[in-house]
Amino acid sequence: MKIFNDINELRKHLEIYRTEGKTIGLVPTMGYLHKGHISLVQKSVKDNDITVLSIYVNPTQFGPTEDLDKYPKDLENDKKLAKEAGVDVIFIPTNSVMYLDNHATYVNVDNLTDNLCGKSRPTHFRGVTTIVTKLFNIVQPNGAYFGQKDAQQAIVIKKMVKDLNMPIDIIICPIVRENDGLALSSRNTYLNTEERNQATILYESLQKSKECIKNGEQSATIIKDMIKEMIEEKPSATIDYISIVNEDTLEDIDYIQGNILIALAVKIGQTRLIDNLRMEVNLIC
Amino acid sequence: MKIFNDINELRKHLEIYRTEGKTIGLVPTMGYLHKGHISLVQKSVKDNDITVLSIYVNPTQFGPTEDLDKYPKDLENDKKLAKEAGVDVIFIPTNSVMYLDNHATYVNVDNLTDNLCGKSRPTHFRGVTTIVTKLFNIVQPNGAYFGQKDAQQAIVIKKMVKDLNMPIDIIICPIVRENDGLALSSRNTYLNTEERNQATILYESLQKSKECIKNGEQSATIIKDMIKEMIEEKPSATIDYISIVNEDTLEDIDYIQGNILIALAVKIGQTRLIDNLRMEVNLIC
Repeated sequence: MKIFNDINELRKHLEIYRTEGKTIGLVPTMGYLHKGHISLVQKSVKDNDITVLSIYVNPTQFGPTEDLDKYPKDLENDKKLAKEAGVDVIFIPTNSVMYLDNHATYVNVDNLTDNLCGKSRPTHFRGVTTIVTKLFNIVQPNGAYFGQKDAQQAIVIKKMVKDLNMPIDIIICPIVRENDGLALSSRNTYLNTEERNQATILYESLQKSKECIKNGEQSATIIKDMIKEMIEEKPSATIDYISIVNEDTLEDIDYIQGNILIALAVKIGQTRLIDNLRMEVNLIC
Repeated sequence: MKIFNDINELRKHLEIYRTEGKTIGLVPTMGYLHKGHISLVQKSVKDNDITVLSIYVNPTQFGPTEDLDKYPKDLENDKKLAKEAGVDVIFIPTNSVMYLDNHATYVNVDNLTDNLCGKSRPTHFRGVTTIVTKLFNIVQPNGAYFGQKDAQQAIVIKKMVKDLNMPIDIIICPIVRENDGLALSSRNTYLNTEERNQATILYESLQKSKECIKNGEQSATIIKDMIKEMIEEKPSATIDYISIVNEDTLEDIDYIQGNILIALAVKIGQTRLIDNLRMEVNLIC
């Protein structure tokens, strides 16, 4: 496994693979790897000759009051897990490598970034789409792997790739969960024991919603109220949003039908967690 | 010479060249080719194994009151000139090929697009950087060729490529002029005889400025006032802007020193023309 911090050296190395006709998969991460990241790596290793893992905590996707400075890091463990999972190349740039002092170019996806996390984190997706574009241009992968846990991110990136004709396949992998249902996230490490116990409410309320919809509930308001009630029972929980949206437009829906996404953002103590559930609901009248 | 309207067919064709290890040059144009465009093609043909010319009048870079609908077209002549100049592939997409109905992704270069043409055409550069990104992703050229006549465009595209790590060399070619100095532009075809005669004032005032600066004039205001006076003598002329800027920042300067750009936009009758002059001014005290 090779490790690069420099863009030109990485490119030179990847060029060797490319001239050999090898396919390259990219797994962009912010490090502090968990089994969710590893599932992306495993899928890339399966699909491609070469897998590149990037580890970069991208400042432009954090708001001024967010956890940029305390985002967890464990580079040695990341390297160990990456190697075990079959990563060929790790790219670990510094901020000065990734952003020129007078950086001025941003990629924006309109509309899809207005709702959900885009509402509470107004500059977040501009940061994500910009850094992902940069990583795509640096690595020039055949495919790039993202997790369904960041549902809006997945949809926004797919839209960007389509709108800008990026020659890259975007592969979205399922959410990986703890045994009790909590979606894996590097931020779970912030939770204390009590908060960790309460955090399962996101998954539990999504499962309960699924059950209700399967039993015929068609009102988004009724489902959202039920989720709200369940979450508010947890003393550490503060709701950021509970949304039920059309999965193509990410616009709120009243009536549950078609490809829907139930998406939650909840602060447990000081830790903002997200989770979601996709459903295809076809009502037969 | 091959002609493509479809993105996938073009890509399939270019992939053949790429696997043969051939280099590809891209010359993006809006058609109605003149010797300025041809000079870009000739440079690309000299630098690369394969030259791709794109012809596309991109609606997103026109303002609502601009000349999108009447932009001149002569596809048969374009094909003839392209073939003579050594173009290997022409890409001529339609609007529905280039923009999905719900297109939502734009590339923005901040700061450099605030002044000069960005001031009078506020959404112009967003359209340019977005379409150029799309063409880069479709063609994946080794190099792309643009003219110095669109000085701000050249600087903005170079900045975008640098900021987003696009793996493409940007080559800026000199302005090609008529014998009397008028910079070649597809829009010159709009000018009637009287306007055509008056249109040389852009070049003449730039030449006069160069002379004054060479003779030691250091005040941007004095140079700009002189240009203004010269242009205002022409009855068909309406000044959009006369600017002297730092070539790196495109910010107005008062004192003429370093790498400067004198840039003009003037309406001659109904036709908006631009021209510019770059100078490196090193004063010895």
